[in-house]
Amino acid sequence: MKRLSIPAPMRRYLPILEWGGEYNRDTFSNDLVAAVIVMIMLIPQSLAYALLAGLPPEMGLYASILPLMAYALFGTSRALAVGPVAVVSLMTAAVIGSMVLPGSAEYAAAAIVLAFMSGLILLVMGLFRLGFLANFLSHPVISGFMTAAIVLIGTSQAKHLFGISAHGHELITLVKTLALNIGKTNLITLAIGLSAIGFLYWARKGMKPTLQAAGVGPKLAGILAKTGPVIVVASTTFVTWAFGLADHGVAIVGRLPSGLPPFTIPGFDPEIWGNLFVAALLISIIGFVESVSVAQTLAARKRQRIIPDQELVGLGAANIAAAISGGFPVTGGLSRSVVNYDSGAQTPAAGAMTAIGILFAAMYLTPLLFFLPKATLAAIIVVAVLSLLDFSMLRKTWAYSKPDFIAVVVTIAVTLGFGVKIGVTAGVLLSIALHLYKTSRPHIAEVGRVPGTEHFRNVLRHRVETTPTILTIRIDESLYFANARYLEDYILARVVGDDALRHVVLMCSAVNEIDMSALESFETIMHRLEVLGIKLHMSEVKGPVTDRLKRTDFLRSLTGQVFLSQYQAIEALEAD
Amino acid sequence: MKRLSIPAPMRRYLPILEWGGEYNRDTFSNDLVAAVIVMIMLIPQSLAYALLAGLPPEMGLYASILPLMAYALFGTSRALAVGPVAVVSLMTAAVIGSMVLPGSAEYAAAAIVLAFMSGLILLVMGLFRLGFLANFLSHPVISGFMTAAIVLIGTSQAKHLFGISAHGHELITLVKTLALNIGKTNLITLAIGLSAIGFLYWARKGMKPTLQAAGVGPKLAGILAKTGPVIVVASTTFVTWAFGLADHGVAIVGRLPSGLPPFTIPGFDPEIWGNLFVAALLISIIGFVESVSVAQTLAARKRQRIIPDQELVGLGAANIAAAISGGFPVTGGLSRSVVNYDSGAQTPAAGAMTAIGILFAAMYLTPLLFFLPKATLAAIIVVAVLSLLDFSMLRKTWAYSKPDFIAVVVTIAVTLGFGVKIGVTAGVLLSIALHLYKTSRPHIAEVGRVPGTEHFRNVLRHRVETTPTILTIRIDESLYFANARYLEDYILARVVGDDALRHVVLMCSAVNEIDMSALESFETIMHRLEVLGIKLHMSEVKGPVTDRLKRTDFLRSLTGQVFLSQYQAIEALEAD
Repeated sequence: MKRLSIPAPMRRYLPILEWGGEYNRDTFSNDLVAAVIVMIMLIPQSLAYALLAGLPPEMGLYASILPLMAYALFGTSRALAVGPVAVVSLMTAAVIGSMVLPGSAEYAAAAIVLAFMSGLILLVMGLFRLGFLANFLSHPVISGFMTAAIVLIGTSQAKHLFGISAHGHELITLVKTLALNIGKTNLITLAIGLSAIGFLYWARKGMKPTLQAAGVGPKLAGILAKTGPVIVVASTTFVTWAFGLADHGVAIVGRLPSGLPPFTIPGFDPEIWGNLFVAALLISIIGFVESVSVAQTLAARKRQRIIPDQELVGLGAANIAAAISGGFPVTGGLSRSVVNYDSGAQTPAAGAMTAIGILFAAMYLTPLLFFLPKATLAAIIVVAVLSLLDFSMLRKTWAYSKPDFIAVVVTIAVTLGFGVKIGVTAGVLLSIALHLYKTSRPHIAEVGRVPGTEHFRNVLRHRVETTPTILTIRIDESLYFANARYLEDYILARVVGDDALRHVVLMCSAVNEIDMSALESFETIMHRLEVLGIKLHMSEVKGPVTDRLKRTDFLRSLTGQVFLSQYQAIEALEAD
Repeated sequence: MKRLSIPAPMRRYLPILEWGGEYNRDTFSNDLVAAVIVMIMLIPQSLAYALLAGLPPEMGLYASILPLMAYALFGTSRALAVGPVAVVSLMTAAVIGSMVLPGSAEYAAAAIVLAFMSGLILLVMGLFRLGFLANFLSHPVISGFMTAAIVLIGTSQAKHLFGISAHGHELITLVKTLALNIGKTNLITLAIGLSAIGFLYWARKGMKPTLQAAGVGPKLAGILAKTGPVIVVASTTFVTWAFGLADHGVAIVGRLPSGLPPFTIPGFDPEIWGNLFVAALLISIIGFVESVSVAQTLAARKRQRIIPDQELVGLGAANIAAAISGGFPVTGGLSRSVVNYDSGAQTPAAGAMTAIGILFAAMYLTPLLFFLPKATLAAIIVVAVLSLLDFSMLRKTWAYSKPDFIAVVVTIAVTLGFGVKIGVTAGVLLSIALHLYKTSRPHIAEVGRVPGTEHFRNVLRHRVETTPTILTIRIDESLYFANARYLEDYILARVVGDDALRHVVLMCSAVNEIDMSALESFETIMHRLEVLGIKLHMSEVKGPVTDRLKRTDFLRSLTGQVFLSQYQAIEALEAD
């Protein structure tokens, strides 16, 4: 397959045509090793995240087959491992759980609709290149949201670890219902859960060195260390079966269907679609942001590129594939993708091979999972998400930027207090509001000339020379509607009463844009100054800004002049 | 009264203490002349705007008494004439008309609540210095909104001019119901309306020259020319009475109560308050923006200042005064204030004197208005608002800024199509969205050195020197969450495949801010470049930005250096 013969649009929308041409035996064997390792991670995780989403465990497996193949066709990242992830599963549970009864047939149907809508949204964003919308999730908001989501996930799993019932999608209800039932704790379940957590933590840190010390080669030791969850699943299932613990109140997964994923058709109830739309949008954007950030970091390590708008197409296709094969919303997982990359995955084909492995699991392994305790899955979730818990954003924003700090704190608090949907929405709106507020009060400095130079500096910070007839104001912000009147007020307040003044110079070196509102404010300022016998000048106006101003009457009607440099302005006006 | 003896907070909140001390016989006689002229304008206008708001005419008079006195106490503008105005009256009608039946007792009660809430909102904004919120109404949005509102006002008055019935608060319903009933036109009513319009137009343009030609002095001629509406009111009332036109289907004002304004207590129904809140907020902000812009322009002519936050207090007090004396929402009127200023008003006392005049009218003149045709009031409204109609913003924004043009067009279209409340909301949200979109794709230029100088310019626009090992990128925008990832993508796309590259310099001369998201993007960029063996440098970082960066680990962990000037950067890196 020759690259040049493929038309560019096809290459964009089907990246497989790009890397498929380079595929050979080496790439295949590398991909295969990575695929096996990721599969070992993914089987227990996919069951666990289905549980977190409030869905039957087999839906986790289904969400890990066709979606991976769809991403292999349309995705641009060579390392991203797609599938169910914790935060998206939590959001699925929160959104659907507030609409229909968990465990009902409508619940699973709604999850399928959610995946389908999310897929459509991602696809539309990809085709219309709307990926920039994701930028409005600021880093502090994402970080705050993730922190709170992890706390919610951890708390929501406590019921499985204690073997009690609890409900709620925000912290207070969760903790309250847990506290009410804590007396009914099943101690055998708790013992299974805690030992699973203990083993998984040890597997993460201590297993590889222990194996190496026992003479296992470093590479094999690394691979075996990834099998922690599988070992936990196998051993707790065995113990539960061997000792008949299900009869002692240990909740187990029970009978899972064996076979190919079902073909599902998402329902088209307008009311459900309406109710799910905002949630689907948020899940899409959060999934995309997380995914693209991992993909980009991994791609950069090999001087490769991912194309964010095409990633939207890839993830959109994956979610639609999930919806038509009995799955639920998926995206690129952080830890799984890193493992995939570290294990040597070279192309998206690794994902397709992982999918084939999971397919075999869905067809033949499910009977073995009958006695798998739910507490084991909860333990896998807790260990997976707690490693992502990171409060450093609080410290960093506190030191660096108070508005960003406020955004983090509010996002965490609202997410914990009112759930994921309101939390992330509040975070986004607040960060936009804070940004607008900041830029609505731009930094404005009165400047004077540093003696003997052509430099002009803030009169409050430096010893500079000024002339009583000239006022020079440097504006350190683009001028637009939110700050245009602020400038009007500032200048008017400054000039009234200063009877010596004859010239006001606006130094625009930091003004990247002047919108229509700001232009009208300039005219207002000019007319008001004119009445007072003061001329308005401008200096150091940027090229693109000047180009636009030339298309208006403003420069022609300007009472003063436009100077290329502030130094020329002062030279000319002092001589005046 | 000595100025120095008054504590500053009292002087801020009671500006009367400021100007009261300077009051003397000259100021008094100037204020009195202006007060009489404004009163002559205001009596017919206040009746007309009450009609526009769907309220009994006497409420217009009530809204022109106590509110003016309240503003005289708390306002800072010496020329602003407060009272009912067209756009606020239209908004009142639109908001209340969609909730309760026009003409009912609940309707008037809701108008009083609206005035009270609007007063409270303005007061709170003033006390907490939230006047900056008004800045989010961009000039294009205000202009588009006003244009559409004037079209709606004009159309809504057509029913009175034709003597037919029509209803609706958006253009399509209004025009449709007018068209349905046009066959029922009362020709006498139409004749009265059209001749009133004709006379009022002539009075505006032709009356003063005609009087002067007849030997009247220019000052008196100017004053008499302002009496056009009063003449129209008196003559059409007389004709209607003399010829018994009310019996021929001419709608008349009818019996108005005589006496002092009633003392009213706004209702406190939580449901009504909830329904009216957004409307009250919009009315407050639009009223404030219009008012403060007139006040500032007039103040500037005399080197006086108004204090926007105190204006909020003044207008808030005026609206609360309206609410407790049977009025409806008021604000500063454009044309009336200009007349007040031109007639020589020197202090807010002129407003209080106008109020006393209106009080006498409410007590003794109302019986004379029994036969006043509603068509006359409609004519007064139409002539007053059509003179404000201005489509120039469409042309100006088309030439200057397409996003602003889109904002104008959408605001006009949505206001006409869906009414004032949705129209102005859509305009505000759209202009914020467009601003965020613009700044989310900042202008980024690759720059090189202009040969033989220390200047650096865009490689695409100028013949400049570059070095293959160094890439210098100038970012022409503050960096924040909405554009941080854009920069990541841009740099990554640029450097992948450029194997000669060893240094990337970010030239930050136009970067006024770097928020937490952008800082994290810098770190991401730095780490990705590091993997590729490329160092990240910065140049020309502004003082305040550097100060903030120093509070983080970023500068310490930077793989490259921070250079004061781009020239120093190139000198050092070329030698490297």
